[in-house]
Amino acid sequence: MRYLEDFSEGQVFELGEETIREQEIVDFARRFDAQPFHVDPEAARRSIYGGLIASGWHTGSLFMGMLVRGLIHEVASLGAAGLDELRWLKPVRPDDTLRGRLTVLGTRFSTKHADRGSLTCLGEMFNQRGEPVLLIRWSAMIARKVSIR
Amino acid sequence: MRYLEDFSEGQVFELGEETIREQEIVDFARRFDAQPFHVDPEAARRSIYGGLIASGWHTGSLFMGMLVRGLIHEVASLGAAGLDELRWLKPVRPDDTLRGRLTVLGTRFSTKHADRGSLTCLGEMFNQRGEPVLLIRWSAMIARKVSIR
Repeated sequence: MRYLEDFSEGQVFELGEETIREQEIVDFARRFDAQPFHVDPEAARRSIYGGLIASGWHTGSLFMGMLVRGLIHEVASLGAAGLDELRWLKPVRPDDTLRGRLTVLGTRFSTKHADRGSLTCLGEMFNQRGEPVLLIRWSAMIARKVSIR
Repeated sequence: MRYLEDFSEGQVFELGEETIREQEIVDFARRFDAQPFHVDPEAARRSIYGGLIASGWHTGSLFMGMLVRGLIHEVASLGAAGLDELRWLKPVRPDDTLRGRLTVLGTRFSTKHADRGSLTCLGEMFNQRGEPVLLIRWSAMIARKVSIR
């Protein structure tokens, strides 16, 4: 298990990749973001996007999935209080293969809780052409080693 | 259909409510955010949250669903480039009933595309005790009326 003390500014973690399919784009959007360019291929073709694109909430959730499977499953994570910035830089389209990466921007011990601290992170996702499609900045709460003493 | 010109600063839209169930919390998190406090009721009980809580990506996606059903389905929406801030203010737990609200913070015509502009929004979600659980600030792209002339 990794604790806050195991991270340092500048560390980079590659989070693996995943290919997104049209059916999953449509299923997610029908439940959570049923705008025409997310659920209706024909309406999407006539939109400014020229074809079906994934909901940004879906893209963000896919990044989170990669982050948990690629790193957080072995981190003493305590959740997060929010996101400081999220950018959908390029549309994500059916059959795009997305690759995730996490860069540590900084670590800080909590002054309120001796057993934890925050990890400030930059999350990025790229498509199969290497184009950035998603950028997220946020601070995650992580347990300190002292919490297991 | 509502266009950018139909919105003005200070407008408030109530987006309805929805009750979230344990099974949906677990299903979403297994796919996108399988941290123990989102997928394992027993591990969640032992966590700092004292019980199962929804993934923040799930909470945000639920807000988006309410926003689309409660307002965007009748708006000439063109998507969004990102979020400027997102806060998960309180944990969302099984059987919580969430209520969504959108406040218009401002509107601005695009200087680049004469047929569209941006709507700056504050999105909020409250639980059945009236406690805020989610806050989001972002700008949405909306078509102008000129786009249909």
